[in-house]
Formats: sequence, C-alpha cells, structure tokens
Amino acid sequence: MKASVVGASGYAGEELIRLLHAHPFVEVAHLTSERHTGERISKLYPHLKNIYENELVSMKDVRRIAEDSDVLFIALPHGHAMKIVQEVSACSVRIIDLGADYRFADTAIYEQWYHVAHTDSNADRAYGLAELYREQVRTARIIGNAGCYTTASILAIAPLVKAHLVQLDSILVDAVSGVSGAGRSPKESTHYPEFYDSFTAYGAVSHRHTPEIEQALADVGGEPVTINFTPHLAPISRGILATCYATLCEGVTAEEVDAAYEKMYADEFFIRLLGHGAYPATKYVRGTNYCDIAWHIDPRTHRVIVFSAIDNLVKGAAGQAIQNMNIAFGLDERAGLDLVPMYP
Amino acid sequence: MKASVVGASGYAGEELIRLLHAHPFVEVAHLTSERHTGERISKLYPHLKNIYENELVSMKDVRRIAEDSDVLFIALPHGHAMKIVQEVSACSVRIIDLGADYRFADTAIYEQWYHVAHTDSNADRAYGLAELYREQVRTARIIGNAGCYTTASILAIAPLVKAHLVQLDSILVDAVSGVSGAGRSPKESTHYPEFYDSFTAYGAVSHRHTPEIEQALADVGGEPVTINFTPHLAPISRGILATCYATLCEGVTAEEVDAAYEKMYADEFFIRLLGHGAYPATKYVRGTNYCDIAWHIDPRTHRVIVFSAIDNLVKGAAGQAIQNMNIAFGLDERAGLDLVPMYP
Amino acid sequence: MKASVVGASGYAGEELIRLLHAHPFVEVAHLTSERHTGERISKLYPHLKNIYENELVSMKDVRRIAEDSDVLFIALPHGHAMKIVQEVSACSVRIIDLGADYRFADTAIYEQWYHVAHTDSNADRAYGLAELYREQVRTARIIGNAGCYTTASILAIAPLVKAHLVQLDSILVDAVSGVSGAGRSPKESTHYPEFYDSFTAYGAVSHRHTPEIEQALADVGGEPVTINFTPHLAPISRGILATCYATLCEGVTAEEVDAAYEKMYADEFFIRLLGHGAYPATKYVRGTNYCDIAWHIDPRTHRVIVFSAIDNLVKGAAGQAIQNMNIAFGLDERAGLDLVPMYP
Amino acid sequence: MKASVVGASGYAGEELIRLLHAHPFVEVAHLTSERHTGERISKLYPHLKNIYENELVSMKDVRRIAEDSDVLFIALPHGHAMKIVQEVSACSVRIIDLGADYRFADTAIYEQWYHVAHTDSNADRAYGLAELYREQVRTARIIGNAGCYTTASILAIAPLVKAHLVQLDSILVDAVSGVSGAGRSPKESTHYPEFYDSFTAYGAVSHRHTPEIEQALADVGGEPVTINFTPHLAPISRGILATCYATLCEGVTAEEVDAAYEKMYADEFFIRLLGHGAYPATKYVRGTNYCDIAWHIDPRTHRVIVFSAIDNLVKGAAGQAIQNMNIAFGLDERAGLDLVPMYP
Repeated sequence: MKASVVGASGYAGEELIRLLHAHPFVEVAHLTSERHTGERISKLYPHLKNIYENELVSMKDVRRIAEDSDVLFIALPHGHAMKIVQEVSACSVRIIDLGADYRFADTAIYEQWYHVAHTDSNADRAYGLAELYREQVRTARIIGNAGCYTTASILAIAPLVKAHLVQLDSILVDAVSGVSGAGRSPKESTHYPEFYDSFTAYGAVSHRHTPEIEQALADVGGEPVTINFTPHLAPISRGILATCYATLCEGVTAEEVDAAYEKMYADEFFIRLLGHGAYPATKYVRGTNYCDIAWHIDPRTHRVIVFSAIDNLVKGAAGQAIQNMNIAFGLDERAGLDLVPMYP
Repeated sequence: MKASVVGASGYAGEELIRLLHAHPFVEVAHLTSERHTGERISKLYPHLKNIYENELVSMKDVRRIAEDSDVLFIALPHGHAMKIVQEVSACSVRIIDLGADYRFADTAIYEQWYHVAHTDSNADRAYGLAELYREQVRTARIIGNAGCYTTASILAIAPLVKAHLVQLDSILVDAVSGVSGAGRSPKESTHYPEFYDSFTAYGAVSHRHTPEIEQALADVGGEPVTINFTPHLAPISRGILATCYATLCEGVTAEEVDAAYEKMYADEFFIRLLGHGAYPATKYVRGTNYCDIAWHIDPRTHRVIVFSAIDNLVKGAAGQAIQNMNIAFGLDERAGLDLVPMYP
Repeated sequence: MKASVVGASGYAGEELIRLLHAHPFVEVAHLTSERHTGERISKLYPHLKNIYENELVSMKDVRRIAEDSDVLFIALPHGHAMKIVQEVSACSVRIIDLGADYRFADTAIYEQWYHVAHTDSNADRAYGLAELYREQVRTARIIGNAGCYTTASILAIAPLVKAHLVQLDSILVDAVSGVSGAGRSPKESTHYPEFYDSFTAYGAVSHRHTPEIEQALADVGGEPVTINFTPHLAPISRGILATCYATLCEGVTAEEVDAAYEKMYADEFFIRLLGHGAYPATKYVRGTNYCDIAWHIDPRTHRVIVFSAIDNLVKGAAGQAIQNMNIAFGLDERAGLDLVPMYP
Repeated sequence: MKASVVGASGYAGEELIRLLHAHPFVEVAHLTSERHTGERISKLYPHLKNIYENELVSMKDVRRIAEDSDVLFIALPHGHAMKIVQEVSACSVRIIDLGADYRFADTAIYEQWYHVAHTDSNADRAYGLAELYREQVRTARIIGNAGCYTTASILAIAPLVKAHLVQLDSILVDAVSGVSGAGRSPKESTHYPEFYDSFTAYGAVSHRHTPEIEQALADVGGEPVTINFTPHLAPISRGILATCYATLCEGVTAEEVDAAYEKMYADEFFIRLLGHGAYPATKYVRGTNYCDIAWHIDPRTHRVIVFSAIDNLVKGAAGQAIQNMNIAFGLDERAGLDLVPMYP
C-alpha cells in the first residue's frame, strides 16, 4: 500500500512518517511541502537522516501524487483539504484529513467557528474518531480525523453521556496541551525562555475544538450539548490531559459510572481504563496511540471528574489517522500502532 | 526587628530568608532544622554561600528563640505549630504559621480534613490573607498564613461572591501548581526524568485546600459554599495558575463583573487586574508577591471563567507571610516585597 | 528466541523490554526485581499497562530463568553479574551484562577503579561495542556491554587514533548526559526543582568510564592512552553529547580526518556521519540506536574537535545490548533496532 | 542618578531595569526600542505591569536622552554603540556598552572576528570586567562590558595564568549557556519543542568570544595566548558553566593552585571560591552577580580543570554593567547587587 503526505514538514506530517516506517503494509510514496519544495526531508529534520531521504515535492502535483497513492494524508491548516479533495476527485484515493475541513456533519457550524465558507458540504465523509464512528470510517471516501483536544475530551465523556448519567448542561472541559500542538513555526510565546517554567491558558470560551466536542456528545447522547472548553499550555512537548467535569443525574451510583466505561471501551485496544480513583499522566502514553482514562466521583457536589490522557501527535493526530486508515482498508486496526511509550 | 524561622531547611523557609535579606527593617535571627541541626544553612543550600552562614539550631530551643525574636515564622507541616504555640505562650512574640494549623476558624473542619485533633481551638488567630482579612491580621497574635492554591483561588473568586454575581453551587476550581509546592524531599514522582515533560492531576475531590477556599468564600458571601477543587502538577518549579468557573446569576452583565473586581482590588498593591479577556501566566509573577487576575465570560453557557496566577512560594507562602508581618507590625505593607519578577 | 532481564525495574531494564516488544524474533520470558518481587511490572511502570503484565520474580531463581532463556540481560549495578554468571555456569544461556563487570580485559583495572575484587578474570568474554569488537561479540559467551559515555566517546575518537592522526597525550573528553543515566531512584540532586534549569559537572578526574575509554583507544591505536574525561549533567532525560578534543599530529590534513571517519564507519548502519563542520544533537537520536558524529578542525590550535551524540538508554545501554544479541545469535544486526527518533 | 537604556526590549535591557529597580541611587530615565517605539514596556513584558509603565522612545533622540542621563547603557548588537558614542560625544554622559564594540584594545582583532570596520579606535575606553580592570573602569568614559562566556572563562583561568602555573598553549574552554543568551527573537532552533530535552554545540573554533578571552589572559599573563573555545546550549534559561582545562607547568603543586585563587579573589565580593574538588552549578548563582569557581587537579594527566558558573544575564551582562557603573561613579560596588539567588 502506498501512502502520501500533503504537508510533510509540520510535526503531524513528520509524525505520520515516523509511525509509517514501522507499518507492516505501507510504503511512504510522496511527501509535499511548499516552503521546502526540492529539499530533502532529512535536511528539515536531521533526525531522519538515512531513514527518509525523500525529496519534498509541491502539492501543485497533488493529482499525480493521488494517482500514485492508495491513501492521501493531508496535514495542513483548515481550508486546504477542501480544495485538494476537488483536485483529486477523479482519483480513487482515500483521503484522511488531519485538519478541520471534514470534521463537521453540519458545515454551517464549521463556517461559524472557522470563519470561512465550506465548499464541499455534500462530501462522502466520516468523522475520524474510530471508537465512536468506526462503521462510517470503514466506508467513507474522506475521513475528517478528529482533533487533539477533542479526541481526549470526547473519549472521556462519551460513556457518561451515552448512558445518560450526567446533566448535559453541566459539562465542562479543562484541558492542557503540550506545545507541539502549536506547530513547528517559532513564535515569541513558544520561544524556549518564554515557554519553559510557566503555565498559562488561552482560547477561553472561543476555542474551535468546542463545537467538535459538542457534535460528538450530541451524536452519542441524542440531544444538543453545550459545553465550556478551556485550553492551557504546559511546558511539555507532547501530550494532552483533559480534566472533564459533569454533574451526575439524581441517583446515579458509582457502579453505574464504572459500568458505563467498561461497556463502551472493554474491547477497545487503544483505550486503557485506569478506573475509578486513578490518575492518567501524559508520560504514560508518550509516542503511542493510547488514550488512558480514569474518573472520580465527589459525593459532596455530585460531580464526576474524568481525566484522559493522549499523545496529541499520535492519538490526537498521526496515530489516529493511521488507525483510521487501517479501518478504511480492512487492515488490523493495530497495524503499525502496537507501540510501547518511550519512558522516561 | 528580629525574625526567626522554625523549619528553615524547606523551600518555604529558604524563601523566607531570601526575601528577608532585602527587607529594610528585619534581621534574621535564628533558623531551625531538626535533620540538619549544627550544620550551616549554606551547606544545605550552596546558593546561600557568603549570604547566610547561620548555623541551624534545634527547635527544642524554640522558647529561647522566641524570646530573642519579634516574629516567629513556622514553616513546618501541619500539626507542629499548635505545639510550638503552646511552648512559647509566655513570650510576646508574634507567630506566623505557614502550615494549616491556624487557618480554620472552625477547628472541626480542620480535624475532619487533616485527621488530627486540634489542641488550640481558642487561639487569638487570624486567617493570613491580607486582602480579605487585613484588620484581623493587624491585631491577632497568631496568623495562619493562607495556603498556596487557596490564595490564588480565593482572590480570583471572592469579588464575584462578594457582589453576589454567581451561583454558589456552581463554583469549581481547576488549578495547576509548580513542583516546589511539594517540598524538597525527593520522591519518585518528582524525580526529574519522571516529572519533566508530563502533566497529571492528583488529589481530586479530596485535597485539603478545598475547605479553606470554602471558608473564605463563605465569609465573603455570607452563606456556605461547596466547591470542587482539582489540583494538577506541571513541570514547572514555581507558580500556580487557578482556572475558576462559576455560573453567573440571571441577568448579570459583563460590566458588573468588571466592576466587582475593580471595587475590591483597586487599591491592592499586590493584585494586578489584567482585566476582561486577558491571560495571566505564572512567569509574569515569578519570584514576587503579585497575584495577577483576568476573567472571561461565555455568553453561550453564562459562565464566568477567572484565571489567577501567583508564585506559590511567595504570594502562596513566604511573601504572604512577610506581607502579614508588615501589617501586624505596622510597617509599610510593601516593605521587602517591592520586587520585579525574574524574567525570563 | 527467549530473552530474560535480570534487574527489570531500572530504566535500562525497562528500555530493554520496550525495544524487545518490537523485535521480530524475540519473546520476553522472565523479568526480575528484588524490591518488587511478586508485583506486576505495569504497577511500577503504568505506561506498560496491557503491554507487559508480567509478574516480577526474584533473581534467586536465576538458574531456572537461565535454563528457560536463550539470552540473559543483566541490568544491575556492577558486582552482581560476576555472581550470576557463576550461578548459571552450567546453562548454555548467552549473557549480556549492561554493568561494568565484563568490560575490562585486564581485571586489575576494574579492581582499581571499582574498588571490588573481580572473581571471574578468565571469563569467555567480549567488550560489547560492536563497531570495534564485532568478531569477539559474535562468539563470546559473556558480553560486557559498553558503557554510555564510553560508547559516545570511543566511537568519536577511534578513527583518529586508528589512523594515527592525533597526539595520544592530548585527548580530552568533555561530555554531557541526560539524567536517566543516573537511574530511577530519587535523590535530592535529581529532584525536579533542583535539577531543572541548571547545569553542573561531577566526577571530574575520577569517573569510572575513563579507563574504559582508554582501554578501547589503546586497542585501536596499539599503545597506551591516558585521557581526561569530565562528565556533566544537563536537564534532559535521555542523551549524551561527547565533545572530544585532540591535537592533530604535524602535517595532518582535513582530508585525512574526513577519510579516517569514512573508512571506519562507511558500512556501519548505526553510525551516521554528519561530517566536517556539523553539529549532532541528542534530540536527533532520541529513542534510537544511532550514534551521530561530526568534527571540526581549528587551524589556529591544530586541534580537532569531535562531537558525538547517542541516546544513553539505547546505544548507551539497551539498544547496544540488543545489537550485541543480534550479532551473537547470527540475526540481522538491525533486527528490532530500525527505529525512527521520536521528534519533537 | 539617572540611567537610560538604549535597547530596552531585549533580555539584557530588561534585566538592567529589573536590577535597577532595587538600586538605591539610580532612577530609570529613558528606555528605547526601535521596533516598539511608542509602546509601553509593560506591553512587551507583562511581568512589568505597574512596575515600569515607561513609554519606549526611539534612539533617534539619543542625544536628548544622553543629556538627561548620567549613564547610558547600550544593550544592542555590535556595531550600534560606535555610532551612538559619536552622536553623544558632546554630552558628559558615561557609556556602558553591553555589546562588543568597546571590548577590544586592538580594534584590528574586533574587525577580524566581527567583520565590520571599527570607527572609534581611539576611544577613552576600558574593558568592563571589574575584577581584572577595576582601575580603568573607574575613569574611562566608555566601558565595554565583558561578554557572558568571556566573563566566566576569564575569571576561571586568570589566576592560573597570572601565577604562571599553566602552559599557555594548553588552555581550552568548553562552555555551556542557557538560551536567554541568544536573545528574545524566536528561531526554530530555540522553539520550545526543538530546544527542550536536547543538548548540542555550536560555534566550534569560530565563536567571537574566543579573542576576548585571549585578550584578557594575555593581559594577565604578559604574553599572547591562543585557546580553543567551544560553546554549547543546554535547555536552561539562564546560566553559563565554563569547564576550563590547562596543563600544569612542571612541578606545580595543588597548594600553589589554591593559593593563586585565594590571592586573586579573596577580597572580591562577587567571586565565591568553592575551592578544590567542588562543583559550581548555574542554579546557585541564578539571578545574581556572583561567579562561583572551583577546581580539580588530575595527577594522571597533570591537567587542572576549573569550573565557573555565572548568570549570563547578570554577571554576564546587566549585573556586570551595574557593577561597572557603581565603580565608575564611585558608589559602593555592591549597590543594587547584594542579591540572593532565586531558588529553586
């Protein structure tokens, strides 16, 4: 199988080829970068020396690339994938977009939060979060890979919403990300001396992952959900920890909460339930496609607090994309993803 | 004025003498450590070489120390201060306890959360959070210095509660601390390769700072408050960022929120209001007694989100203790605390 | 093939099983830990949940373990391997010791630097640095896996010594390690707030890797070598950067230096020559068995400066051990080690 | 006394005003920034809120600024100070340049290493390293503040050279800096995910601090010195550790080495001799003007290894500048610099 990456010079693109190197059935075919067309990827990423010496090509040739690929990963900011999909509409290639263009069933929500017109609202698409949308992923031509914060948040809360254990207007996600989620372009805010040894929030009440979380919870729960989502940045490279709060419905017991998680995730390879009273940490999932989940119940306030941890570049991006690819192509869902976290 | 520190070998004790070195009216008299009695403090803390060469003494001599001091700072785990207060009851020394023994007006709450009997429930004490309890601090013999998480949390929420702008059962604090708050004793969890590049939570639904926050908010609001408080640890040395959530009462406007903060803190030197829509960061207060506060309102959920940042060892411990000392002794409240954050 | 690890609870042991999980021909059989006998390894290392749920056993049963294993990795402090080798002398198991016991051909040097008597001076052993001692590794019963600093230092300097390009009394190694090299036991010096944001040296003129470097350079150069070796600790988890200095012999040209590296390492998969004027970085080899090397020549002082970077837990420990195992068992030397650095 | 800072938006400029805030005799008058003219410094540096609300002005007005100042600190890249000095030549202001323009007695060396013509070779200048050039600093109109690496290196080696204890052609400095030395402008190489958890070298055989070290050692030793200087970057914000090597002259004893340090530095407030066998660390001097020095002697190689640690922004830049100012204006050399390291 041949896979190509449009936008290979960012961290998500680079993580894709890191993971694909160990995939038993996939060969990396073409890598694009507009800023670095003609350069070798190992010049941008010296750690790839001798491993990937591919020359970066322009996505102007995306049609030819698509014809020579079974799957096309798009690792670009939102807005690009819609155009690329049109350019390759004649090809049989499956498309996995790591951006936001194909994440929303209702493109009006996309347009409202992303402030651009959506030009492909009738796409044959699926939301690329396999644990919730596996059947759709299997068959859709375009997979809108779930976002990083959203993956951690949705997987943490979905069992509670599905089992109708929590009040839908009480849901609140307080999440922390590593800085690799902000990409490779240097900014003053992520300059080492500015970013190390500090902790701050951003995007309060306005972060674009908010409606994505709401969409999935509404799908699972069967009615609209409105949440608060507050992202923070910690001086770590990889990892997201989501701390999710919800008020339990009257009379819900701890056993029912435990059962909801067991029921939904018992057979999910990439979800590790640490159980009631435990604490996931981003280091426990580093470099892997795992999502670790644990929960606590406060008898004083009748709130349930759920923690989930993922690696934002793996289960939050490249790993999830490969998981989706495996499903879409009928491969073992774990192929290339049976990884051990790098520790310490 | 002579100040002594009981428990000088921990980070809070060490921070006290760092700050007192620059205090215009105070001389450091005696420093105690049981584990290091007879050693020079500069052996434990080589950065103090030539600055403090004091020999550490045992707190067995606390009575003699108290007689030779105007103020006694106690920087020990909870449970010790109660005993020391009894031992020095005949001395005129003022006592500032950085532990929890004198933080609660109702010692039953202390006993319930700390699981030890309180032996001094009738103490002439004040809660050492000057911005809310300045008058009591001025006259009390014993000052129970406010905790680190609690300082950040209370200062962030108090204006909203005081002005009756939020629903009291909706308050929730999600906070992140630097690891210096866990002390100097090495543990596996804070071993560098285990702690760097990871993010996790702890103490969910059970952390002892919960009732302390509730006590202050109840004092300010005039009725009982029950909250959720969830602490986390980030790979930073110093700093606390509290992210506080509350649902606005029906009809409350953004202007009323702004006004509540202005009204309560306009004259407070150590509180810097960054205002609506801003983001405090722990790096902006590093090494200083400042508490930076900003807030956001979500029209979709009618929640207000308040961020506050402090240095846990300064405004959360040693700086606040000196601020309390300044008030208690009628000095300029800013003496020794007019500091510039160390940046970057 | 069955592999067992004696001393699985340390970082080197844990790294061995991380890497062996991806090895196509090896199954992990037994894991020992004295402090944690009877516990599951996933309790000590929660990141291994669902991946390794092996129960840790005592090395008291090492003979039975050896009988059930093709290869025994010993990841314990020096002094233990000598005893274990005697206990399993009747078994046909091959032994790879990650400690120092079998690193020295002349056990008198071991005794002088390690201050213990060597009880197995006639062992059928090889020094486990494949790039220099591949033939010996192929056949020896016991392989004394090269140390971390030593691997980086020897690989950097050996081509210069072999080609007789530098003055032997001018060699000096200034090296920096990540803290994982100091093990998992927490100490005050590696407590996060003590270790972060600081840089220091240790072990000047006395570090035990000194004679190990000297031994290999003497083997390569054919005459005794005495060097200075100065280790430092940087706030990084993994990685060693060795900065090596030597004075060029009269008349040696830059081309001869380049040629010496090309000649020695052109066919070595795990050595990546970055060439003249480049700068290796520990991040470029993170998590892999690569050793990156580059060099600079100073025409003003006639010194050559060589930089080499490895991951101390992989090429400096577990990866090298697996490389040695692959050679010893006639497998592809790269089996299980064809890894992509985790970046960023 | 009135001090102004030309180039206040960089880290060195910002550190100057942090330190001057605590200086008993100095008031900050004017701050310049070309990129941020008209903005408040507290907008660039939110940690300065309420502390410095000065509006940044353009250095086009430097003449007017100079007339309204007793001392002018220039914290700009090399090349600017020469021009500014000419512009303010009619003013009586004393000038302390934190750049390289006035560091060299022989401007030909400057021109050779900095590749620009020097336009002010007859300046009334001193090299601003007080421990070696105090008398010149006292009277010179222009003080060329010593560089960061150079301060650490020169102070470490000077006693050995002055006492003629080491072979001059054997001197070698291997140094490590925190990233604040590279300034505030974000680059890919100092982007947090690229810079954290890695260690690398740069500027081998070509770094511009090389001739500056050589100049001072030649002054102290009375004959030309040629050295190797190799800088590295560690993931720390502040701090330089210099590891210096030299071969002892025949017959030199450890006592002579100890005596050389004692003799030269016994009365220097800012130099703390940790003595034979100790290890300075950058954390022990963080935020202060101290330079900590320790040394080791290797009887096997007859080399002496000297470690020195400074805070690159204080003793390596702003603190040293204030120390020079104090001397130049006849103030207590310690005024504003009697600081306690921030720890941890």
